[in-house]
Amino acid sequence: MLDVQNPTEARKIIRDNKYTEQTAGAAYKYVQGNLCILPSKYASDFESFCKKNPKPCPLIGLGTKGDPLLNDLGDIDIRTDVPQYRVWKSGELIDEPLDIKKYWNDDLVTFILGCSMSFELPLIEAGIQMQHIQNNTIVPMYQTSIECETAGQFSGKMVVSMRPLNAHDAIKSIQISSKFPAVHGAPIHLGNPDEIGIKDIMKPEYGDPPRELKKNEMPVFWACGVTPQLILEKSKPDFCITHSPGKMLITDKLNKDLAV
Amino acid sequence: MLDVQNPTEARKIIRDNKYTEQTAGAAYKYVQGNLCILPSKYASDFESFCKKNPKPCPLIGLGTKGDPLLNDLGDIDIRTDVPQYRVWKSGELIDEPLDIKKYWNDDLVTFILGCSMSFELPLIEAGIQMQHIQNNTIVPMYQTSIECETAGQFSGKMVVSMRPLNAHDAIKSIQISSKFPAVHGAPIHLGNPDEIGIKDIMKPEYGDPPRELKKNEMPVFWACGVTPQLILEKSKPDFCITHSPGKMLITDKLNKDLAV
Repeated sequence: MLDVQNPTEARKIIRDNKYTEQTAGAAYKYVQGNLCILPSKYASDFESFCKKNPKPCPLIGLGTKGDPLLNDLGDIDIRTDVPQYRVWKSGELIDEPLDIKKYWNDDLVTFILGCSMSFELPLIEAGIQMQHIQNNTIVPMYQTSIECETAGQFSGKMVVSMRPLNAHDAIKSIQISSKFPAVHGAPIHLGNPDEIGIKDIMKPEYGDPPRELKKNEMPVFWACGVTPQLILEKSKPDFCITHSPGKMLITDKLNKDLAV
Repeated sequence: MLDVQNPTEARKIIRDNKYTEQTAGAAYKYVQGNLCILPSKYASDFESFCKKNPKPCPLIGLGTKGDPLLNDLGDIDIRTDVPQYRVWKSGELIDEPLDIKKYWNDDLVTFILGCSMSFELPLIEAGIQMQHIQNNTIVPMYQTSIECETAGQFSGKMVVSMRPLNAHDAIKSIQISSKFPAVHGAPIHLGNPDEIGIKDIMKPEYGDPPRELKKNEMPVFWACGVTPQLILEKSKPDFCITHSPGKMLITDKLNKDLAV
């Protein structure tokens, strides 16, 4: 784990390619973002898609065409400040570099999307224990039958993450996560998984299976940042750069400042 | 129904004993309160009880000892401004007068507690349909196993009201009612009734039974203003005045101003 609590310092280490692993826990008070870089011809539609689907695709940063700096989010150069990238051509993964200097060009637009780490911290601080954190596993994620709103060529179904909670914690988690619309916000469902097209709660499409659902627990589902990645895979833009899973952009924004 | 939307006008009609029925729907934009009047020797303990148990006993008004006026809540004389009262001696109902002029004395203290009508209105405005309102029945209420926090001689178990909601509306109802702590606030439970000591959801202790719980609905439980009434019945103060069920005090406070 990158055990550095200052975001500038954490990015410096990442920029120098001295840390190339997952960023969970690094500068944990600060917002981490999902990355998507697209040629400008897709930018308008993808921005619309994010704005139409703010729960799975909460846009927290948008770069200027051709500019790799994201000053609104900190002293960030998007070409170097993520531990590892994925470069896609027409939906095919062609490279997983530690920086994207050689891929950057004047036509690219950077999108930064919020991630659930930012609302998990206030949940933890409120005393809510989450199974995947206690078990040190990846939160289970499921493909649902919920259609995202289409924008241009971008369309597809929503992916959700699931945390088993008792009634008391479920209510509290709704209250808390509602204050964080920039990082998925309130749950989109709770209770019966079948209602949103999930056939077997023990078989998530992504992440690790839940260990169990206790008798007094119900599954609580949040829109998930994996959604835009799948939308991109499905829509196959001729060029695209994302972050390598779990290896996120660390920003200077405090999680607590995302609260409304 | 008292079809008057101005609270001053509604109270004038009630004060003149020209309306002696339930107040639901009258001046519906304004807060209605549950009434409890006690001799001063009980006042400190009862106030503590309310403050320790704000969900079932949200205190929205507190009179000065011996003063029947409640200027904070409007141009109110508590001796005349409720359609009908109940007068209790040592836990026994001795009178149900239309005013309490002859019972008032310099030692009495008035407590006004918020009621769920104030959060039902914003739920309705948010498009949430509630079965008891659609069916024009009284919301089902249940005795639970949840112990209130004791204060002096006041102790007992919490009563809850129940509204069957689908997952989407349950989440929305938690978000909305959380903004109204002065009128019971967020639900205290949802899902399995057995966890809070309710054995049969179709057999409420008070109000009307729910017609049904649909397959996609879960029971959502809120702390209920009947709680303090039962606490008073159980603790049997030597003298006490309450409102007759459903015949509440109409105040000048707007429901929306209770939102935090």
